[in-house]
Amino acid sequence: MFRTLLTAAAVSALLAGTAFAQDAKIAEGLRDKALRDHLAWDITEDLTTSIGPRLVGSPAMEKAKDWGVAKFKALGFTNIKVEEFAKPSWTRGEESAWLMAPYEMNLNPVGLGRTISTPAGGVEAEVALFKTYAEMIAAPEGALKGKIVVITQPMVMAQDGAGYGVAGISRRAGPVEAAKRGAVAMLIRSISTSDSSVPHTGSTANGEGVVTIPAAAIGVPEAEQLERLAAKGPLRIKLNLQSSFDAKDVAWNISGDIQGSEKPDEVIVIGGHLDSWDVGTGALDDATGIAITTAAAKLIGDLPKHPKRTLRVVMWGSEESGGSSEAYLAAHKDALGKIVLAGESDSGADRIYSLQVPAGSLEHPVIKTATRVLMPLKIYLDRAPAAHGGADIGAIEEAGVPVINLNQDASRYFDYHHTMDDTLNKVDPIQLAQNVAAWTSFLYLVADSDIDFRALKPAAPAAAH
Amino acid sequence: MFRTLLTAAAVSALLAGTAFAQDAKIAEGLRDKALRDHLAWDITEDLTTSIGPRLVGSPAMEKAKDWGVAKFKALGFTNIKVEEFAKPSWTRGEESAWLMAPYEMNLNPVGLGRTISTPAGGVEAEVALFKTYAEMIAAPEGALKGKIVVITQPMVMAQDGAGYGVAGISRRAGPVEAAKRGAVAMLIRSISTSDSSVPHTGSTANGEGVVTIPAAAIGVPEAEQLERLAAKGPLRIKLNLQSSFDAKDVAWNISGDIQGSEKPDEVIVIGGHLDSWDVGTGALDDATGIAITTAAAKLIGDLPKHPKRTLRVVMWGSEESGGSSEAYLAAHKDALGKIVLAGESDSGADRIYSLQVPAGSLEHPVIKTATRVLMPLKIYLDRAPAAHGGADIGAIEEAGVPVINLNQDASRYFDYHHTMDDTLNKVDPIQLAQNVAAWTSFLYLVADSDIDFRALKPAAPAAAH
Repeated sequence: MFRTLLTAAAVSALLAGTAFAQDAKIAEGLRDKALRDHLAWDITEDLTTSIGPRLVGSPAMEKAKDWGVAKFKALGFTNIKVEEFAKPSWTRGEESAWLMAPYEMNLNPVGLGRTISTPAGGVEAEVALFKTYAEMIAAPEGALKGKIVVITQPMVMAQDGAGYGVAGISRRAGPVEAAKRGAVAMLIRSISTSDSSVPHTGSTANGEGVVTIPAAAIGVPEAEQLERLAAKGPLRIKLNLQSSFDAKDVAWNISGDIQGSEKPDEVIVIGGHLDSWDVGTGALDDATGIAITTAAAKLIGDLPKHPKRTLRVVMWGSEESGGSSEAYLAAHKDALGKIVLAGESDSGADRIYSLQVPAGSLEHPVIKTATRVLMPLKIYLDRAPAAHGGADIGAIEEAGVPVINLNQDASRYFDYHHTMDDTLNKVDPIQLAQNVAAWTSFLYLVADSDIDFRALKPAAPAAAH
Repeated sequence: MFRTLLTAAAVSALLAGTAFAQDAKIAEGLRDKALRDHLAWDITEDLTTSIGPRLVGSPAMEKAKDWGVAKFKALGFTNIKVEEFAKPSWTRGEESAWLMAPYEMNLNPVGLGRTISTPAGGVEAEVALFKTYAEMIAAPEGALKGKIVVITQPMVMAQDGAGYGVAGISRRAGPVEAAKRGAVAMLIRSISTSDSSVPHTGSTANGEGVVTIPAAAIGVPEAEQLERLAAKGPLRIKLNLQSSFDAKDVAWNISGDIQGSEKPDEVIVIGGHLDSWDVGTGALDDATGIAITTAAAKLIGDLPKHPKRTLRVVMWGSEESGGSSEAYLAAHKDALGKIVLAGESDSGADRIYSLQVPAGSLEHPVIKTATRVLMPLKIYLDRAPAAHGGADIGAIEEAGVPVINLNQDASRYFDYHHTMDDTLNKVDPIQLAQNVAAWTSFLYLVADSDIDFRALKPAAPAAAH
């Protein structure tokens, strides 16, 4: 009687249950091993110390490419690839700024990434100061004409880094919008959550057909000082920003695999970006992303039997200056269907606090198991579906590749990122290890499963009449 | 019977008791008023914003002198004096540093105050790196010859700032000792308790007959990076430091009085220093010291009746570069006996946690009353006698003037002091007000008393045979 009740479906479910239990045990073992492992620290220390800052187009970036290949080899990765793509590069030159009136005071600017230069010797003009980007946009016609625009909008600290997008518009769009209104140069309060005088760089809009003006960031206390002074009377500033472009430069996405044991053609793409800004040593942005994902894959690769699917770590070659995402899509567009999942680590190295998975997969046994395995790391399953998995996987995500988010606490991240303070001493090794533990155990469970995120995706609602 | 027991001494004690009770009440009122007052904040904001950095010999320092006089006038101080003294000045020029090998990396140095210049264009040499000052002193003969010496000794954070003296020797004596050993230049890890890349300046030994070498500080992460790289192989550094001296320059001690109502010739000297380094805006070092002591005296000056003795606030004119202390002694050496007490506020603006009084005065009723009045501010009476009341009162202290310490929590102070991060946004207005409350109430009690600290001083023990 009992046996007659065992339908084919029930047998399958039981067997699957056993497999899940087995995998959960392996994932827990990986998780606990990762918490005691220091490969991620060693990778972070080595990359930041032996190479230093890694701006696209710099000799250091070329060294970093070779470092990445050597690292993959040394750690037993296979199918190592260096995929070159065209990437115009930008090199910072001499930079300075002075408050000229009401008195002379040295300012400490950092040019926004890919800004154009001022005329040689700099530009001096009266200041038009706005406390928000919106205030600048709303300024009466002519108010910016011939002026150096200063925007002092602050950035809000948030665990999920949400303040970055809001405040970042001053940096991304500010110079172009100010140029339209006749300004001659721009200074922005750093897109920063700290109270430090260290200024934050980061890309600004520039490129073919874009009309823009020279632009730099200043530290938070300098922006506040200008705000207070502007309330008392007119200001004059002199800004000198020199830099150069090389239109014919290249960058590289570098990848290495931990080959799957049963379905090697099904690939999970993970990684961080190898390039960094030229200030600091790109420790949190993003040596730790490289380190976390490489260490996670290596720990899985050390198992007696690899999981079914292939893990591919990509060291993205041009996140800060853009382009690695599109280059990967172009190079792999015929194989996208075989990328079962993608994820990126690029918000520093503080603890992961939540997991987001593709829509429709919340109730899948693999995700339920993962949630249980991650819980001791103090990671919860966020029921909102994963989206915007990372800048470097943006293009393949848009082309249909499912993504996950292992969300890092970004509260501290925007104190340091894009500054000379993005250095090894800001990395917390305990939290770094928690990141590796989360990636390792989650990746193992998905890689050793048959979960098909695309098939689980809910149908789009019918269009309204 | 009762009346016959009232001896003259008892009557005197009772009357004194009544006076103490009255004074305690006034002191408590001043204390509580000060906690809600924002004059100290306004002074700090005004000095740092309207004048900015105030290096001795700069146009800003001359403006600061006029600002000080105007501030005393506006606040009702009398007997305002500007006492000029000779003070050779030093002006920072162009500064840069590069790691040249094993790879090129921009460093961010700040020349130590009063350092000599490198040859034009800089000096490049192999590095001799030492993890402590003592290690450098113990280095074998010839080890420094022709080298750029790097000392990476860290500074310990301590509530009383005790780590500063220990680590500071690299800055004060390092360049002279390295010069003796044939080094060509020096870089030190900033004398800093933060993890920031912002470097800390501060005076180094220099002057007539002193043989020294060009010297700068680098930020903490850069020092740690050089340490890690030096463990792997030889380093080369290029250092360019330009600056100029003006041997004929002057500085000024500026003072204003709240005149005593009964014994105006008995003076309590308090203050902070008006000069600052040229980086940052000298907010914690020492606009807040000026602000705290000026606001305290002003609050007392606003009483219907001034206390018996005169309160004199001195805005010291050259603490960072030295000299104001000796100048005050020289100008007032015939009147030192009338200075009943001196104190200085020069460790930022974080909360005062303890009071130290001159030896022998612990049990005096004025001090006992003061201890009670200060207790709600969370200030305890430290039973060790006050010593080293402040750099600017060092010379008069040595000449016999009794001093007090209102010890500020200096845990955070050495994160910022002598850097471009010494700015208004590091000042905590709540803690600033606690400082004013402590100074105001303590000063009132001493100023309205007859306490004679010199008379209370215990006799020196007889010399041993």
